[in-house]
Amino acid sequence: MSRAFDPRLYLVTARSLLRGRDWINVILAAVRGGVTLVQLREKHLDTRRFTEEARLLKTALTPHGVPLIINDRIDVALASGADGIHLGRRDMLPADARRLMGPNALIGLSLESMADAQAVLPSIVDYVAASPVFPTPTKTDTAAPLGIAGIRKIRELVSLPLVGIGGIHSGNVREVIEAGADGIAVISAILAADDPEQAARQLRTLLS
Amino acid sequence: MSRAFDPRLYLVTARSLLRGRDWINVILAAVRGGVTLVQLREKHLDTRRFTEEARLLKTALTPHGVPLIINDRIDVALASGADGIHLGRRDMLPADARRLMGPNALIGLSLESMADAQAVLPSIVDYVAASPVFPTPTKTDTAAPLGIAGIRKIRELVSLPLVGIGGIHSGNVREVIEAGADGIAVISAILAADDPEQAARQLRTLLS
Repeated sequence: MSRAFDPRLYLVTARSLLRGRDWINVILAAVRGGVTLVQLREKHLDTRRFTEEARLLKTALTPHGVPLIINDRIDVALASGADGIHLGRRDMLPADARRLMGPNALIGLSLESMADAQAVLPSIVDYVAASPVFPTPTKTDTAAPLGIAGIRKIRELVSLPLVGIGGIHSGNVREVIEAGADGIAVISAILAADDPEQAARQLRTLLS
Repeated sequence: MSRAFDPRLYLVTARSLLRGRDWINVILAAVRGGVTLVQLREKHLDTRRFTEEARLLKTALTPHGVPLIINDRIDVALASGADGIHLGRRDMLPADARRLMGPNALIGLSLESMADAQAVLPSIVDYVAASPVFPTPTKTDTAAPLGIAGIRKIRELVSLPLVGIGGIHSGNVREVIEAGADGIAVISAILAADDPEQAARQLRTLLS
């Protein structure tokens, strides 16, 4: 592992999800509520704006000691001084990412199947995100849900920190943790809440 | 300038433009015909495939001594060992690109106006590409054509190597050079030709 980090409550965000609100303020509210890790995911922004957003968010998160992870774009991560990169199957290979990001970066990898889990290289990757655990409306390009049984199987295959993502909320978070996950990643459970800070706090209480 | 390079005949390509033909072979034919610089531009590919393509092309070009420039994506350029990066107004800022790419990389910048030309930092950028010189069907998001008069004005403002791009072919290339450009960048004038090698050779003869 590159360095210590807390995988318990991982907020995945894109500015477009926060339309009409000050997106940095929403994220900082979630951090006050107990978010331990933030991923910025922007699939449709140009490089310049994505880099600007990442820098703003990095500056906002630094005083709170919460690492910023960038989805896919190592160029944006390097330029913004982000703490790490999250990779899916269409993103850069983890070995290339490690070479470019250096030994101290956090590198996360999405797993969508048992085959993905068996292929993880723990010498390169810092954490894995198993997705989707449950059906989810946020992402439409995802694989079939892994279910709680899938989390249990991945836990047997992978010793790295494991977070579940996809359709997780306060009503099912305990099942995910009891199946062996070290944390959860959420989007709408926090961002769609009327009070993101309170939503984060409620989830965090269930994770402690 | 980072290092010597020949800006005379710059081929801008994307694999999708070469559908139905072996894209590497088409590019190598153009190189045999006299292409001096190749830019890979892929706006719709995922990072993993873009990186794979860039690596294939870099491997193919290396024996010919022709530099490979990647459009926009510094992550892909770094992972593939490409020689440089080409930046537009929505891509990373040149200063960030230089910091990430290092002192030896070639950094090119698109100019679409006199204001762009006045803002170029010659200590950071290695060449500029003025676009579009003429109306072009290849790119639909471009500014109004600069015309030959625009090339002349940019030549007065910028001392860096200058290539014209947009609607240039064997019938108008001399005008562009006589207006002060050091070279031309082309897409369809080579890639849409029945014989890309011969098309490149004809252009190169007009540039020598």
